Amino acid sequence: MKLYDLSSGLNPRRVRIFLAEKGVEIPLQEVDMMKGENATPEYLAINPMGTMPALELDDGTILTESIAICRYFESLHPEPNLFGHNPLEQAQIEMWDRRMELDVAVPVMHAFQHSHPFWEGRIPQAKTYGELASDRVRQRMAWLDRELATREYIAVPRYTVADITLQCSLIVAKAIGLRIPEDHTSLTRWFQNVTSRPTARA
Amino acid sequence: MKLYDLSSGLNPRRVRIFLAEKGVEIPLQEVDMMKGENATPEYLAINPMGTMPALELDDGTILTESIAICRYFESLHPEPNLFGHNPLEQAQIEMWDRRMELDVAVPVMHAFQHSHPFWEGRIPQAKTYGELASDRVRQRMAWLDRELATREYIAVPRYTVADITLQCSLIVAKAIGLRIPEDHTSLTRWFQNVTSRPTARA
Repeated sequence: MKLYDLSSGLNPRRVRIFLAEKGVEIPLQEVDMMKGENATPEYLAINPMGTMPALELDDGTILTESIAICRYFESLHPEPNLFGHNPLEQAQIEMWDRRMELDVAVPVMHAFQHSHPFWEGRIPQAKTYGELASDRVRQRMAWLDRELATREYIAVPRYTVADITLQCSLIVAKAIGLRIPEDHTSLTRWFQNVTSRPTARA
Repeated sequence: MKLYDLSSGLNPRRVRIFLAEKGVEIPLQEVDMMKGENATPEYLAINPMGTMPALELDDGTILTESIAICRYFESLHPEPNLFGHNPLEQAQIEMWDRRMELDVAVPVMHAFQHSHPFWEGRIPQAKTYGELASDRVRQRMAWLDRELATREYIAVPRYTVADITLQCSLIVAKAIGLRIPEDHTSLTRWFQNVTSRPTARA
């Protein structure tokens, strides 16, 4: 097995933290996006989306999409459980993971792509939309601060894949200037908690 | 059980088709978005995202996010299988479902929200971004046309949840003027095939 990685990326970090929580080590191969390595015919043959991560199995089969990769490892290494023990818990964790992905990770990435000087001239930007996406992230931070006032973790009373998705999203948010406001004490406590886990720097 | 529904919505349709494929019938309650019923305190207490679908279980537990709801029903009613029989197949179906969601459904919804006159004055629109999202949908249609030249279904050699996600995305795309181009013969053949299933009008 081999994982095509992008060390700074939101989605690759989700998989690296997930694997670290499972205690699984596999070889990583960095794909240098700055040098356009993800847009070469070689990499597009691996993942036509041109994104990382991508997992190459020993028989050459490729799996992409961070959550599909994580779920595959959950099947191979069921403990510690990060996707749920029974159908209802699995649905609740998936519900929260989706919310974190579609309502936090996606607007964070869109705020980055459409507002940040890094992407100017690299991709078509729509600045007005970048601002709307940033507003969305701020709204969702306020909502999550209220949600986390009464519980320790996002989906169920333990660390799961839904926490990993939010954690990685807020790391990128911070890097582009969308920091958790100081008065969001519950979200801040949660963020300090999850980022002080031994796996957080995977 | 009860499903809070929006008959015209992309995501509620995913769940209705999924349930029809499973042969499961549950009561539907339409939430009239045009009347703002999804933004009432009553509905926001059910789903703070203000979106449909939401599944209410008999004990009052709420599940939202269409794929979380579908996966819950897959656990309760394993056949016909729509999420995969083994870890690798499950990962491959999830990979394709995610691609259909993040790279087709999301840009279709964004093209609708940011370009369409229906939303003018209802939500903040960024027209430049709406055009970029429409371009993205067209690019993805061209890519899927090439993918489907050599296979019958999206993820594996049978109809799965990944086909449902694309099918529902292209129904909304068509409604907002993003039709499958006539020269995309493979994608057209696939669309005619899936939309002629007995469950397509669920």
